[in-house]
Amino acid sequence: MLIGNTMLIGKCLAKIDTPFLLVDKAKFDTNVAFLRAKLAPHNVILRPHLKTVKSIAGAKHVLDGFDSPATVSTVKEAEAFADAGYTNFIYAVGITPQKLPRIQALLNKGINISILLDSVAQAQAVTAFCQAQNIKIPTLLEIDCDGHRGGIQPDDTRLVAIGKILHQGGAELRGVLTHAGESYDCINKAALVAAAEGERHAAVIAATQLIASGLPCPVVSVGSTPTAHFAENLDGVTEVRAGVYTFFDLVMAGIGVCKPSDIALSVVTSVIGHNEEKDWLFIDAGWMSLSQDRGTQSQRQDCGYGLVCDSEGNIIPGLQVIGANQEHGIIAAVNGQIDSGKLADIAVGTQLRILPNHACATAAMHAGYYVADPAQVELDYWARIQGW
Amino acid sequence: MLIGNTMLIGKCLAKIDTPFLLVDKAKFDTNVAFLRAKLAPHNVILRPHLKTVKSIAGAKHVLDGFDSPATVSTVKEAEAFADAGYTNFIYAVGITPQKLPRIQALLNKGINISILLDSVAQAQAVTAFCQAQNIKIPTLLEIDCDGHRGGIQPDDTRLVAIGKILHQGGAELRGVLTHAGESYDCINKAALVAAAEGERHAAVIAATQLIASGLPCPVVSVGSTPTAHFAENLDGVTEVRAGVYTFFDLVMAGIGVCKPSDIALSVVTSVIGHNEEKDWLFIDAGWMSLSQDRGTQSQRQDCGYGLVCDSEGNIIPGLQVIGANQEHGIIAAVNGQIDSGKLADIAVGTQLRILPNHACATAAMHAGYYVADPAQVELDYWARIQGW
Repeated sequence: MLIGNTMLIGKCLAKIDTPFLLVDKAKFDTNVAFLRAKLAPHNVILRPHLKTVKSIAGAKHVLDGFDSPATVSTVKEAEAFADAGYTNFIYAVGITPQKLPRIQALLNKGINISILLDSVAQAQAVTAFCQAQNIKIPTLLEIDCDGHRGGIQPDDTRLVAIGKILHQGGAELRGVLTHAGESYDCINKAALVAAAEGERHAAVIAATQLIASGLPCPVVSVGSTPTAHFAENLDGVTEVRAGVYTFFDLVMAGIGVCKPSDIALSVVTSVIGHNEEKDWLFIDAGWMSLSQDRGTQSQRQDCGYGLVCDSEGNIIPGLQVIGANQEHGIIAAVNGQIDSGKLADIAVGTQLRILPNHACATAAMHAGYYVADPAQVELDYWARIQGW
Repeated sequence: MLIGNTMLIGKCLAKIDTPFLLVDKAKFDTNVAFLRAKLAPHNVILRPHLKTVKSIAGAKHVLDGFDSPATVSTVKEAEAFADAGYTNFIYAVGITPQKLPRIQALLNKGINISILLDSVAQAQAVTAFCQAQNIKIPTLLEIDCDGHRGGIQPDDTRLVAIGKILHQGGAELRGVLTHAGESYDCINKAALVAAAEGERHAAVIAATQLIASGLPCPVVSVGSTPTAHFAENLDGVTEVRAGVYTFFDLVMAGIGVCKPSDIALSVVTSVIGHNEEKDWLFIDAGWMSLSQDRGTQSQRQDCGYGLVCDSEGNIIPGLQVIGANQEHGIIAAVNGQIDSGKLADIAVGTQLRILPNHACATAAMHAGYYVADPAQVELDYWARIQGW
């Protein structure tokens, strides 16, 4: 028998039509508490990135009250969380002038929201808007700590030039922000520790440059889930951002930030057929519910489109989702751990769970989460915020 | 100048916050009419696959009236289209027993819906349900025409065995269905014509086998967008299914089913920054709005995460979205067509459009479409059906 009898959670799941997104609330709570405890000895604020959970009902279990700092990836998230009572955001994507009226509307409601930029042109557009509207928009300068994407090099003289445009032009220069995006490609603990130190160092050098020029820099913000978990020294940093740590996923497990058994998110699916010649099992979870994320493809263990669990969440070793069409997933045995023909024993209608490569991407395919909380008999539901 | 002045549509688009999904209604109508005209000389029904458009407002422009045959990829689609007045569906994904009560509810409302299966176990589950509920569920047998995914080989003796279980057990054996999924990998016209003929041949052989055994087979259903466009002979086929032909996409252009200029779907995005050292342009369309589909990766021209157009929809040669994070896209020059440093001329705030690799996948990332119809001044909006 590849899979055992379904027990309590399995019985609950059977009531809902597959595919659907499931949160293991006990694991979720453990993950949230772990990072909070990890950062507690450091003199930093945790500013969770809500782009992963993207849910008002879910954020309640991540944020420590309505005035908790939070990070958002869209203006829509800021608006939705503000409507729900939260008050403290960084919109951590480079600003375009067209979005400033919505930022202004949030500030006018008393929401503490900072924007992000990294160019003279953006700074000029922001200060022109601030002057025209008689408003001071809190603004962070994006620093490039690892060549991953955007941002200014921490020792680039443009940093001070942009800071001065903002500070003297009527915006509020609030500080610097960096994101060690390359940390997702680290292959061992030493590399993760080094990425965290590189992130801290870049942010602190940038802040030092601003302060030396007589500019304010109250916020020194760093973060990514890998660096947040492996930072040994956070001197000079005021806050740490992380998002995917709440659910974790196979990419994070692949670089050693968590174990596969820590992953709190899965897609519940039903077996819809077999291809006996190819020893394939078909499920009703295709890319429409799993996402097309192949983040483990470049890792030591390529997990295909996800690893396979029974309905209780126990990983079935040697199985993978090897292919995904819109509403069809294909499961096959890999690495020779399962005898040929054994998949035929898993009957049509059997419920399985698929662990995601990338929790943010898989969650994005769904309108909400079903939440299995050991403290409750029925599943809870957390709606997700959609759109921009 | 890489991009010209924005004109009528560009001015309309500027009112909506990016990123968002845009339909060029004139191209959409042309694509819909083209396939209808292509199939007109053949004695077949066109049964559009609504998994691509997934919109009640959009389907009105694809289907020829409320009784038009249609294909769906989820029970939710069938329910939503039925609520809107449509009455004729095939649910073209292998059935699980858990979904039968929802099929029954649709049949009880007078909806003509067929299900699909390819195993003895499924047929037994369906007939047991039909007997218990005193209902005849129209059922199609899935035929494997090209080894792409599931289905029974057209000459497999199990075909008749499964047909008999259904026909004698109280279900309605309605016919056979096949899908030439491998046609997406065809590299020239001859291969596309051959794929279409292979699809037809498999379906007709299967139908012949059923009829020779005294079983009914009124429906012989084939289809995929590539084979629908390249079928030369449809003798013995009763209906053709296709979905992505409504929008088309870069994968279809890559195999010669359409031209890039026929693509009716794009994601409108704004420039949010530059990396001058790397000659990168950042846009506010990441995988959250573009999808992670990399369907052109294995084609002759890999289009990255999409090709780049100005706000009027004119392709800017030599540009590609080379990377996509959650809310960041990275545009770079490829193939040496654009001089180094030229991207810096495209200012923050400029609106661009990104053509998708795979229209179904890109559309799936959005709650709806903005529709630019040359006959209307304002953009229309088509909401999408979400969930399962």
